[in-house]
Amino acid sequence: MTVAVVYFSEKDTTHQVAEAISEGVEKMSCQYHLLRVTGEQIVDGRFVSDEYLHTIDRCDAVIFGCPTYMGGPAAQFKAFCDKTSDRWDDQSWSGKFAAGFTVGSNPGGDQLATLQYFAILAAQHGMLWVNHEMPSDHEENIENKLNAQMGFAGVVPGDTISKRDVTVAARHGSRVALFSKRYSALT
Amino acid sequence: MTVAVVYFSEKDTTHQVAEAISEGVEKMSCQYHLLRVTGEQIVDGRFVSDEYLHTIDRCDAVIFGCPTYMGGPAAQFKAFCDKTSDRWDDQSWSGKFAAGFTVGSNPGGDQLATLQYFAILAAQHGMLWVNHEMPSDHEENIENKLNAQMGFAGVVPGDTISKRDVTVAARHGSRVALFSKRYSALT
Amino acid sequence: MTVAVVYFSEKDTTHQVAEAISEGVEKMSCQYHLLRVTGEQIVDGRFVSDEYLHTIDRCDAVIFGCPTYMGGPAAQFKAFCDKTSDRWDDQSWSGKFAAGFTVGSNPGGDQLATLQYFAILAAQHGMLWVNHEMPSDHEENIENKLNAQMGFAGVVPGDTISKRDVTVAARHGSRVALFSKRYSALT
Amino acid sequence: MTVAVVYFSEKDTTHQVAEAISEGVEKMSCQYHLLRVTGEQIVDGRFVSDEYLHTIDRCDAVIFGCPTYMGGPAAQFKAFCDKTSDRWDDQSWSGKFAAGFTVGSNPGGDQLATLQYFAILAAQHGMLWVNHEMPSDHEENIENKLNAQMGFAGVVPGDTISKRDVTVAARHGSRVALFSKRYSALT
Repeated sequence: MTVAVVYFSEKDTTHQVAEAISEGVEKMSCQYHLLRVTGEQIVDGRFVSDEYLHTIDRCDAVIFGCPTYMGGPAAQFKAFCDKTSDRWDDQSWSGKFAAGFTVGSNPGGDQLATLQYFAILAAQHGMLWVNHEMPSDHEENIENKLNAQMGFAGVVPGDTISKRDVTVAARHGSRVALFSKRYSALT
Repeated sequence: MTVAVVYFSEKDTTHQVAEAISEGVEKMSCQYHLLRVTGEQIVDGRFVSDEYLHTIDRCDAVIFGCPTYMGGPAAQFKAFCDKTSDRWDDQSWSGKFAAGFTVGSNPGGDQLATLQYFAILAAQHGMLWVNHEMPSDHEENIENKLNAQMGFAGVVPGDTISKRDVTVAARHGSRVALFSKRYSALT
Repeated sequence: MTVAVVYFSEKDTTHQVAEAISEGVEKMSCQYHLLRVTGEQIVDGRFVSDEYLHTIDRCDAVIFGCPTYMGGPAAQFKAFCDKTSDRWDDQSWSGKFAAGFTVGSNPGGDQLATLQYFAILAAQHGMLWVNHEMPSDHEENIENKLNAQMGFAGVVPGDTISKRDVTVAARHGSRVALFSKRYSALT
Repeated sequence: MTVAVVYFSEKDTTHQVAEAISEGVEKMSCQYHLLRVTGEQIVDGRFVSDEYLHTIDRCDAVIFGCPTYMGGPAAQFKAFCDKTSDRWDDQSWSGKFAAGFTVGSNPGGDQLATLQYFAILAAQHGMLWVNHEMPSDHEENIENKLNAQMGFAGVVPGDTISKRDVTVAARHGSRVALFSKRYSALT
C-alpha cells in the first residue's frame, strides 16, 4: 500500500507538514512518495511533467498539499491540479483515497477554501475523500490550533511548524494510510 | 451492510431521487433505510427526534439529501444536520461512508453549494466522502444533465425526475453501497 | 439610510456581535433595525412571519448573522433565508448592500462556510456584498483573532465576546453603513 | 469611470465573454481595459509583471475571469491572483467594486467554485462584490443557461459562446459599470 504526498512549498513550512504526514503514513507500515512541485516543472503557467501522474497511477491514495495564497491554493500547485485533467477523461483515479493539507499565515486566512478546492478536485476524479477525525483533546489549547476537519489546516506565521502541528499532521497521514490499507487488502 | 438515506423533500422530486438511490443500494445486495425528515420533527426550528440518529448509528454509510433552497440546503434538512451534533462530541460516526444529493429548479441554482455543505458536514463527523464517478457517456446530451461529481445534482423544473436522473442517482447509490460493502467486509 | 441586522442567536454571543455591529452602524449616523429570529417564528421548519421581509424592503442594506452549527448557518437562520425566496422572484432586493457575521466555538469550525453561504444568498438576490477590510494592526495578536475578510467571524468558546471582537464587529457595521450611505445619497 | 477586465483565456471562449462584458461596460459610457493574462507573464509558476496591477490601481472596478479547470480557476489566472498579494498588505484596493465570470465545458463543471474563489479574492482585498441580477425571463429556455447569480457562468462545449451568453455577459458588465459609476460620482 503506497500513498503519494504531492505538494508545493515555497518557504518550507508546507514541506514540513508534508514530512510529518509522511511519517504518519510510515507509522502504519505503508510506503509513501514525497512529490514536490517545483517552479521548473511549470512552463508558461502549465505543469509540463508526466512523472508525478505516473507515480500516482500506481498509488492507492494521494494527499494534496500547498500553502493558501490569496484565499485559495497556490497557483504553482493549481498548475499541477490542472495537469491531472489527463486522468479525468477516463476517470482512471476513481476509487483512490484522497486527502489534503494547507498552511496559512493567519487563522482566518481562508484555509478552508483551499481544502474545499482539494475536495472538489477529488470529486472530479471520483475519489474517496478522507476527512480528519477531531483530536480527542478538543477542549484544550483552543487558541493554538484551527481544528479544521476537512483536512489539515495549519497557521504558521513563522518559519517552523509547531510540535502540535507535527502530531496532528502525522495523525492525518496515518488515518489516510489506515483506510487505504484496509480497503486495498480486499481489492 | 446497511445504508441510511436521510433526506427532506417538499414537492416529492427529492423523494424520487432518494428512492432511485435506494434502488441502486439494493442492486448491490445491501439494505437501506429511507429516513424522511418531516415538519413535525422540527419544533421551534430544531429537530427534536433521536430516532434517525439511532438508525444511522447502526449503518455503515449515510447519504444526505434535500432540495437546494436559496443557494443552500433546505432549512428543514439543516435542522436535522444540526441535530447530528449529538454525535460530533465523541466522533462516533467517524469512519462511516457518506455521500449527498440535491435537486434544484435551475441548472445554475447553486446545487454545488448544497453538496459542498454535505461534504463539510461529513468532515465534521470524520466520515469518508464518496464522490460520483463521471457517467461514461459524458459527451452526450450535455444540455440535459449537470454532470456534477461531488454528488448527485439534479435539475427538476417540473414534478417528476427524468429517466436519466433515475439512472444516474441509482448509480450513485450503488457506488456508495459498493465501497461500504467492500470496506465493512474487513472490519 | 437604514441597515437591517437580521440574525439568530441561541446562547447570546451572536446577539452581542449583532449589537456591536449596530453600534458601528449608528456611529456613521445611520439607523438600524435589530431583527432577531426566534423559534416561535418557525413552524414545521419554515419561517412563517412576513414582518422582517417588510422591514428589509425599506432598508438600504442588510447584515445577516448566526452561529455556525455543524459547518454551516444555524437551521433557524436558514429558515429565514429560505423565506426570503418571496423576494427572489421579482429580484426586489437587487442592488441593496449586504454583509454577514458568524460565531463559532472553534477557530477552524468552518465559519468561512457560513460567510460563503451568506455571500451566495446575497448573490441570489443580486445584492452588493460588502467585505471586511483587514484591521490595520494585522501583525499583532495573531492568535487571538481569525482575521476573516468575507465578513465578521468570531471564536467564542465562552459566554461573552471579547473587547477586540466588539471593536472589529463595530468596524464592519460602520463599513456597511458608510458604503450604503454614500451610495444611497445618489439614488 | 474605468473598469479593468482581467482574465485568462486559452481557447478563446473566455476571451469572447471578456469582450461581451466590456461592451456592456462601454454601453454605460464607461471606459474599460482588457487585460489578458498570457503564459509569458508566468515564470516558474509565478506571475511576474507589475503592469496590470498598476492599471487596476487606477480603475474603479475590476472584473476577474478565467475558464474553470478541474473544478477551480485556471492556474494561469490563479498566478495573477497570487500576484495581487502585493496590494493586500496595505489594502489599497479596498472599496473598489469587483465581479467575476467563468466558462466550463459542462453545466455541472463546478463553475460556482470558480466564482466563489473570485468572491474570496475580492474579500481578501476588502472590495465590494457585484452579483448578477437574474435575467427577467428566467422561466424560459431553462436548458440553455445556468442562471448563476454570483457572476457570469457559461457552458461552452464548442468554440463560440452563444448569442444568449453574449447578452447575459454584457448585462453583467453594464451592471458593474453602473454601480461603480454611481458610486464614484460621490468620491
